[in-house]
Amino acid sequence: MSKIAFIGTGAWASALATVLSKNNHQVCLWGIDETEINDINKGYNSKYFGKTKFNNPQLVHATNDLKLALNDAETIVLAVPTPVITSVLHKIKETLGERSVNVINVSKGIDKESKQFFSKIISEIMSKNLKNICSLIGPSFAIEVFNNHLTLINAVGKNTQFLDSITKLFNNDTFKLITNNDEDGSEVYSALKNVLAIGIGIASALYPAKNLAPALISIGLKEIKDIALTIYPQSNPLSGYELSAIGDIVLTCLNTTSRNYSFGLQVASVGVVEALSLNTKTVEGYNTAKILIDIFEKYPLLNTPLLKNIVNVLDLKIHQNDLLSFFAQI
Amino acid sequence: MSKIAFIGTGAWASALATVLSKNNHQVCLWGIDETEINDINKGYNSKYFGKTKFNNPQLVHATNDLKLALNDAETIVLAVPTPVITSVLHKIKETLGERSVNVINVSKGIDKESKQFFSKIISEIMSKNLKNICSLIGPSFAIEVFNNHLTLINAVGKNTQFLDSITKLFNNDTFKLITNNDEDGSEVYSALKNVLAIGIGIASALYPAKNLAPALISIGLKEIKDIALTIYPQSNPLSGYELSAIGDIVLTCLNTTSRNYSFGLQVASVGVVEALSLNTKTVEGYNTAKILIDIFEKYPLLNTPLLKNIVNVLDLKIHQNDLLSFFAQI
Repeated sequence: MSKIAFIGTGAWASALATVLSKNNHQVCLWGIDETEINDINKGYNSKYFGKTKFNNPQLVHATNDLKLALNDAETIVLAVPTPVITSVLHKIKETLGERSVNVINVSKGIDKESKQFFSKIISEIMSKNLKNICSLIGPSFAIEVFNNHLTLINAVGKNTQFLDSITKLFNNDTFKLITNNDEDGSEVYSALKNVLAIGIGIASALYPAKNLAPALISIGLKEIKDIALTIYPQSNPLSGYELSAIGDIVLTCLNTTSRNYSFGLQVASVGVVEALSLNTKTVEGYNTAKILIDIFEKYPLLNTPLLKNIVNVLDLKIHQNDLLSFFAQI
Repeated sequence: MSKIAFIGTGAWASALATVLSKNNHQVCLWGIDETEINDINKGYNSKYFGKTKFNNPQLVHATNDLKLALNDAETIVLAVPTPVITSVLHKIKETLGERSVNVINVSKGIDKESKQFFSKIISEIMSKNLKNICSLIGPSFAIEVFNNHLTLINAVGKNTQFLDSITKLFNNDTFKLITNNDEDGSEVYSALKNVLAIGIGIASALYPAKNLAPALISIGLKEIKDIALTIYPQSNPLSGYELSAIGDIVLTCLNTTSRNYSFGLQVASVGVVEALSLNTKTVEGYNTAKILIDIFEKYPLLNTPLLKNIVNVLDLKIHQNDLLSFFAQI
């Protein structure tokens, strides 16, 4: 039995917390919302999961006291909304003092400000306070994880021994972590899948037949592979086969419950500007598309017409109806 | 304008014929069913596509006279049911005499008797009568192709120049062939996707949540890649990204309209024996699974627990409910 601290009290934090509680580990969730904290201490996260209890509620605690949450914890799961990651990391660092911890990151994508992957930001800020880091990436709606539905995802990181220890912590009969050493490559797939999902959402609204979306998944997967290998020439060309790549892409790009895909459907019907005004929550793929513009400028030889056109639509350079205009050249 | 002969008057033959007629090529379909032949000569294939006409019906003809069909045709599209391929090929060879032709193969999978891929069988039987051969593989329900819904698939073969000429013949604004040189590898994906589809059908009935199927697609894709590279060490490890691989897998493994996936759903509810008795048409994946048994025996080091368990279920070695029993070891 280990004690694991969670930074965040949201859906994904609660879903992973219940997995660990099922395995008889004690978890403590740190948050700032008193209602959520009280709710969790009663055994629920009703905001996201209604009246379903944590697997072992007596092992699940929540607090607004960061020092208390981090006390005795060798491993922390970082699961706060991406806009506040940097400020929260500085708080954690301050609270830890001389101590160092393992970090499990669940934030995917690229930071809007620094244009870096979150695992890199975490490593930089935590610096001496960081023992090891990994990211959890793969096909996983939080509500299904919370409800103990069979889920397999990757634990992505560079230190195999650490990844193995994390899989031992989490794995049980309904939740499986599978190790994946290609941190750089996998983060590219994880970030860009959200851009692809917007594009497939747009295309699926424009062309509702079934043959097209699987083709776009293949084309998009190849383009992301080319981008990953261009940015990180040492990354693994086979990483596209992983849970963190094609697994997550299939879930994200074919489901209306995925925010990026749904945003694509909206773009097809009302255009980018109005679709943006309809979304109060962050559409990760939209922010990532802005960063892709820089990548395309930096690597002009990249031949990725699908992703380029998705970016062009989101950047208001072409109309959403012309998303697949490059097909004329095939 | 070219003249292309089709061997077969079924759904797939008619779908490709209407693509070519859209491009102003003359097509002649050879068949044995007088009703279908008359129907096509009136501009329809109502058995499969109701009252929708061929794109340019005046360019589409059908006949039961093989000599007439093959007359002047430099290229033939072989689109007959797999059990009769061998006998039909001998007829074609006899009719051609000294002439040689290009063959476009649309039969995927492995022949039950010879345990060879159909492109190999065609090459062997046609021998001197064969100029070039390619296979069309990718995400494509025939009815959507017939209805001019946007479809992208691979033209798979070893001769790049020939593949380019075939793409020129077929490509238009709604149908796109993209060349793929890895014939050996791509045929492995194409055949084994049907086995995977049965497994994902079974799993989706047993565990209806959304996180699982995308994970099984990733796991299955990796296993098929390992099998392809074991059987054909010279094949391309990146072929899994292609329309003929992941593209076709996504369409086949997630759609109830796919026969193999639906068979999997039936297996989950009534077991293999009764599911087989409910299917009058060939379930390709079931036959391919039988051949996989030999492959697993020949290459005992293959670590493909998902495909092995699908085969074990179909071979009545384990109960369908135990399909994912290997997860206990993760």
